[in-house]
Amino acid sequence: MPRVAIIGTGLIGSSIGLRLRESDIDDLTLVGYDKERGVSRQAKRIGAIHEEARDEASAVRGCSLVILSTPVLALRTAMEAIGPALERDVVVTDTGSTKTEVMGWAETSLPRQAFVGGHPMAGKTDAGPKFAEASLFEGAHWAIVPSGGATEGAVRAVQSLVETLGAKTMFMDAGEHDAYVAAISHLPMMAATALFTLAHGSDAWPELSRLAAGGFKDASRLAGTERDVAFDIAVTNRTQIVHWIARYREALLDLQERLADEDGEEELFRYLAQASWDHANFVEAGPTERATDDGSDLPRMDFASFLMGEAMASRMRDITRRSEERLVEAERKQRLTRG
Amino acid sequence: MPRVAIIGTGLIGSSIGLRLRESDIDDLTLVGYDKERGVSRQAKRIGAIHEEARDEASAVRGCSLVILSTPVLALRTAMEAIGPALERDVVVTDTGSTKTEVMGWAETSLPRQAFVGGHPMAGKTDAGPKFAEASLFEGAHWAIVPSGGATEGAVRAVQSLVETLGAKTMFMDAGEHDAYVAAISHLPMMAATALFTLAHGSDAWPELSRLAAGGFKDASRLAGTERDVAFDIAVTNRTQIVHWIARYREALLDLQERLADEDGEEELFRYLAQASWDHANFVEAGPTERATDDGSDLPRMDFASFLMGEAMASRMRDITRRSEERLVEAERKQRLTRG
Repeated sequence: MPRVAIIGTGLIGSSIGLRLRESDIDDLTLVGYDKERGVSRQAKRIGAIHEEARDEASAVRGCSLVILSTPVLALRTAMEAIGPALERDVVVTDTGSTKTEVMGWAETSLPRQAFVGGHPMAGKTDAGPKFAEASLFEGAHWAIVPSGGATEGAVRAVQSLVETLGAKTMFMDAGEHDAYVAAISHLPMMAATALFTLAHGSDAWPELSRLAAGGFKDASRLAGTERDVAFDIAVTNRTQIVHWIARYREALLDLQERLADEDGEEELFRYLAQASWDHANFVEAGPTERATDDGSDLPRMDFASFLMGEAMASRMRDITRRSEERLVEAERKQRLTRG
Repeated sequence: MPRVAIIGTGLIGSSIGLRLRESDIDDLTLVGYDKERGVSRQAKRIGAIHEEARDEASAVRGCSLVILSTPVLALRTAMEAIGPALERDVVVTDTGSTKTEVMGWAETSLPRQAFVGGHPMAGKTDAGPKFAEASLFEGAHWAIVPSGGATEGAVRAVQSLVETLGAKTMFMDAGEHDAYVAAISHLPMMAATALFTLAHGSDAWPELSRLAAGGFKDASRLAGTERDVAFDIAVTNRTQIVHWIARYREALLDLQERLADEDGEEELFRYLAQASWDHANFVEAGPTERATDDGSDLPRMDFASFLMGEAMASRMRDITRRSEERLVEAERKQRLTRG
């Protein structure tokens, strides 16, 4: 009669529960706890858990596996609460968005052999069990960050959990994890938040909001991240996020200067074409494999040969001609103004 | 036997054609031209046009309405080509993403009473007739920018075209248009392009691309904008886009400083909560109406009263306590290091 505890039965916890129930593990009992009672009640109603526990400690009693899926800062309180109540050979994992601080809290509050950190690279901005889906993790990558003392058995248990949920494991240490997700997850969230805040704060927002189409909506979607999730990420991965925002501001300055440079239209075209090309490859071919030899610049070589093709060459001639025409026109206008 | 010409039968032109055919206008004939022959052939195959023309001039002969739906820079060439072949009482409109330069070209090449500029705030990054949909404009706003000399009849004709396509008209002048779309459409495109280029250019891209989930994909989607579309927008709305990138860099710097300020966690929480709140209102309630009295700050007042609620107050106390704990811990560590 295996018992598994899910602490935090929101979108992630409930999606895990739904998928585990589908997986037909004999006699599995899923015990759920959420500090908001309505949330665990809803998780039970949709079938994501079998039982609601009245507190963290009673949730984990008798459990061989404990999954902590609260926002990051609440993980600390949850670990403090479950520590004394855990069974001897329990395995504990989490789904928190940052790892360095989390690993430290686990070291303080949990048996050192028990904890293996985790982070599913899947989710939605919609929060709560209402939006939970058994297929949420299908095909997603799931970072696994074992603690220093974790037993091989604990690591294998979490690995098999992840595979049962339909996800692909990626092992890394906490520092690597936090650096990577700062770039690929936290920066996009902050970029979207700043973009939305800027547009929303404009005097022209009534007009802008009517003109907003799918492009703005996608680019700003992460501004809708639940406030606790966003805040917890911000304060537990502060240095890395600040670093990546600074780099992003430099990338924007670079693009701004290219745009402002009226003599650099060919270069600007190359830059935009390269981005569009690389993006299409990413969308179509998926993740880039790390090359084992020096063939890692092959995509760029393909792009270069594409740049040399006839369609592109004719487009470049066109750009150069129009660009020259505009300069001539501008000079003519200037002469007229002076004259 | 009304004839309508569609010059440029890509995603936008073909979507217009599909919807017009559905609208059961008696004996309507849609004539299409695209400088890429394969594109107009495909438009005909999917039923977006009835006839393919061999050049721009023959496309517009006998037409009472001409719709120019090429990328922006190609509008100039198209106008030059159709000018001499237009019928006497023709109405010409376009779907270009910028308007100031376009209005100037129309003034040079088209009869002054004929031209009414347009811009549907809908689209996809996927290009070509293959992705065309009759419902593409349903519920979207469509900016209308009449030329100085446009007759009332011409304006009404374009307005009724837009309504037939299922969209809502918004009248404005070219300068307003270009300022608004720089903020709500072109900045998001440039922001996504810089974000994607930064991540893709990182040494860690093989890892980052595997960790990339829906958040990064949405935030960077506009980096996949067709290169000609992106370039044409860039060079015809340069000043406004540069202005908005500069403002965006300031907004990012502001957020970066809030993140870096370890004593300002309550302020940071308020900032993130406000963005999440405003975003949810935007998604649920749609565009903000411009208030006719001084009630325009009502949403902020709602947020403020929400901030005063008990759940929020308890969350704030929690943040303050944890923030103080972290400072105490940091000091303790420092003392240990010194000691």
